[in-house]
Amino acid sequence: MPKRGERNRKEAEPLYRQIQEELRTKIVTGEWPPGTRVPPQRQLAELYGVNRSTIVYALGELAADGWLRAEVGRGTTVAADVWKAAADSPPPDWGRYVRDGLHAPNLELIRQINDAEPDPALLRLGTGELAPELLPSAAMQRLLAERPEGLPLAYPEPRGSLRLREAVSARLEARGIRASPSSVLIVSGALQGLQLIALGLLRQGATLLAEQTSYLGSVQVFRTSGVRLVGVPMDGQGMRDDEARRLAARHRASMLYVQPSFHNPTGIVMPERRREGLLQACVRAGLPIIEDDVYGDLWLDEPPPAALKARDRQGLVLYLDSVSKSLGPGLRIGWIAGPEPVIERLADVKMQSDYGSSSLSQHAVAEWLLSGEQERHLAFLRAELKARRDLALAALREHAADLADWSVPQGGFYIWLALRRPLPMPKLFDAALRAGLLVHPGEIYARGDRQHLRLSFAYAPPALLREGIRELAGLIRSFD
Amino acid sequence: MPKRGERNRKEAEPLYRQIQEELRTKIVTGEWPPGTRVPPQRQLAELYGVNRSTIVYALGELAADGWLRAEVGRGTTVAADVWKAAADSPPPDWGRYVRDGLHAPNLELIRQINDAEPDPALLRLGTGELAPELLPSAAMQRLLAERPEGLPLAYPEPRGSLRLREAVSARLEARGIRASPSSVLIVSGALQGLQLIALGLLRQGATLLAEQTSYLGSVQVFRTSGVRLVGVPMDGQGMRDDEARRLAARHRASMLYVQPSFHNPTGIVMPERRREGLLQACVRAGLPIIEDDVYGDLWLDEPPPAALKARDRQGLVLYLDSVSKSLGPGLRIGWIAGPEPVIERLADVKMQSDYGSSSLSQHAVAEWLLSGEQERHLAFLRAELKARRDLALAALREHAADLADWSVPQGGFYIWLALRRPLPMPKLFDAALRAGLLVHPGEIYARGDRQHLRLSFAYAPPALLREGIRELAGLIRSFD
Repeated sequence: MPKRGERNRKEAEPLYRQIQEELRTKIVTGEWPPGTRVPPQRQLAELYGVNRSTIVYALGELAADGWLRAEVGRGTTVAADVWKAAADSPPPDWGRYVRDGLHAPNLELIRQINDAEPDPALLRLGTGELAPELLPSAAMQRLLAERPEGLPLAYPEPRGSLRLREAVSARLEARGIRASPSSVLIVSGALQGLQLIALGLLRQGATLLAEQTSYLGSVQVFRTSGVRLVGVPMDGQGMRDDEARRLAARHRASMLYVQPSFHNPTGIVMPERRREGLLQACVRAGLPIIEDDVYGDLWLDEPPPAALKARDRQGLVLYLDSVSKSLGPGLRIGWIAGPEPVIERLADVKMQSDYGSSSLSQHAVAEWLLSGEQERHLAFLRAELKARRDLALAALREHAADLADWSVPQGGFYIWLALRRPLPMPKLFDAALRAGLLVHPGEIYARGDRQHLRLSFAYAPPALLREGIRELAGLIRSFD
Repeated sequence: MPKRGERNRKEAEPLYRQIQEELRTKIVTGEWPPGTRVPPQRQLAELYGVNRSTIVYALGELAADGWLRAEVGRGTTVAADVWKAAADSPPPDWGRYVRDGLHAPNLELIRQINDAEPDPALLRLGTGELAPELLPSAAMQRLLAERPEGLPLAYPEPRGSLRLREAVSARLEARGIRASPSSVLIVSGALQGLQLIALGLLRQGATLLAEQTSYLGSVQVFRTSGVRLVGVPMDGQGMRDDEARRLAARHRASMLYVQPSFHNPTGIVMPERRREGLLQACVRAGLPIIEDDVYGDLWLDEPPPAALKARDRQGLVLYLDSVSKSLGPGLRIGWIAGPEPVIERLADVKMQSDYGSSSLSQHAVAEWLLSGEQERHLAFLRAELKARRDLALAALREHAADLADWSVPQGGFYIWLALRRPLPMPKLFDAALRAGLLVHPGEIYARGDRQHLRLSFAYAPPALLREGIRELAGLIRSFD
């Protein structure tokens, strides 16, 4: 695609004036209401394919005409009384709507990461997804092109396509989990599964236990429905069952969230005996469990012990899984297995949220699982991830042995780097960003943490990963 | 696929005992916790591919052994103390979780309709979607098979795929709406768009104005976030602007929802002058508008007047659109166009709900729109829908002229049937269901309504549609 500026470029008018006109139109049509922050000059220059000086000139004239206002610390914004020039009534106060909305905004750090991720110039050292070259785009295209029945464009059933639920049920059976298709709900990824549980099964003020350092720290899904998160202390075997029992009683907890296999971000695998202990603690407390097993397939050395759900004899466990970590996060397909009345309730809430997940994605995942391609693909992935993990560990030993400690992850995507000393993390994050490195500070997963970084070996190209770790170590050292 | 019973059938054991064993396993593993309602015998017989008598026998033995309990009015349920036989601790009280959850359950009538819809034996006379044979399954498959770059399986950007947003922006421009790609958010259908607005822009206790008879009556998305719905009286031109002005002031309303083109369920097209009047009323009140235009492309006689968004000079209108009514509801792709700070907020809430819409669906819609296929497809659809509309109207004139009144819809899917006399609607709904007809009573769209039915000419096969209308008229007459 040509850039916007090029596409619309007319010979007659100077560039800066065309840009001025386009920005002014955004203002008078209300696309940029009063108070809107104008994108940084660098970004505008990129968008219009012009020099930054052209942008400076265009913005300067708009400011002189009263359309824009430069404010210290806030950058350039659309002037507050600009509507007087454009219309006879003030526009609605959208800022108030944005502030008043019920849903909590995302953590500032997460929003910065979300915004930075699309920049292809950045090296993403913490990203929790597979590198694009590891996703089977071409194989999936061939598979779907072969099917004689076309592509499904109609609504699936409320619980999701039966064919996919049957494929999921067979897959779970191979893991020792018994779940018939009617006790499975297809969701748009594990995150939506958590949102449905938050909205469908928990009351306001309920307490949810989770690992003290947890993926849940990075999402606001429970906070928005007024659920209180209480962290359960961990050791090298993951969540401590004695602490879970104690805190469940103390807080009269409603549910417990746990990631027993290849925990995000620490990489810990909960061993056999701890799993039994934790399950028994929850059975005795009558405490339902959300078991998040999205990394379960991604073992690198040996398969993890059986899931809690495989040991569940009481319908205590809601089991969350997805294809986001293996087949493709863009498909947005995951599933929850649990007692049928719970699945029925969650399906009802899902129908009210989005009328079900993409039938195209459901079809793609069902055909992929049923074709046997997934087993071949997982074998390929494990070999790739293992090589990348070993490369990252070698780079760490070479460049960071004096700065940090880490364990060797047996699966998943992550190395949880424990720095020898606490650091001013926001400064490190910014310095890394300026150096072209995007990192995930530990405070995303444990409030107040200043001593950890989550590294991912799944995303960055191997050659750059090694180099990035070297640069990152240099940055950390510069804070000494 | 073979039926479950067939797949697992062993020669040695009698069928009823295999079924018994499978149901017992569901109970002891917690898939059916105490209190779970056992599916109707007819459904179980269908599922296992056996005679109903085999099911009766299997259930009878399970009841005799204390696993099941038959209760008058509630059917057969799993016994309350069944866990004592299976485990030493009681399972969690899932019923309480289901009751306590924050999200409102769907309307009972909607759940009945959702549950009934997958039954292929039913004739769906009210369904708000295109018949499967009108969806371009094969053409879409060919289109996606041709692309040289494979299928996208990675995450799209937070606001949705740029390529799709550019295609949407061009499409809106053709409707006289100026919205740059950065002011467009891709959502999983218009319903999710409404959920994001409810969660992202409205505070608890806020008032939303909507047509007195409205699609919003059929969804609980605003109720769950504590937003109060106030109905604005309508006339033959749709929502009355004078009433909107009066009620906005009286209730200090926060937003107004309106469907100016081919209103669901009444089919009304708001004429030019009413659109201007309504927009001016909202401008003066500083009242933001949600304009739902999902049926806008489906004009049958002539295009509707320009959208409110095309007249919006203040960024007052959040414009909702989707491909669900034309290309395929299973794709779950729609979009919101509005002021950038609002789009940014909604994108943030969406990222926290499901990390974005299916990249496969986004790719399919972008390629479809950019290929020009959509214009050809819409021309085909308009001809088809027009023929089906005329057929339905002819059947109504023949069979229901003495029972009801209706207007000729100029587009969309619906004929809003005004019965001459109020009827006991739940009884009519049940009687129709027993006769194999699924209808949409008016009370779904306007609380307490007993005098309307929404008919859809978009779903039922034409020959059956005519026959279905005849039977429905007979049923209505039988209530005389």
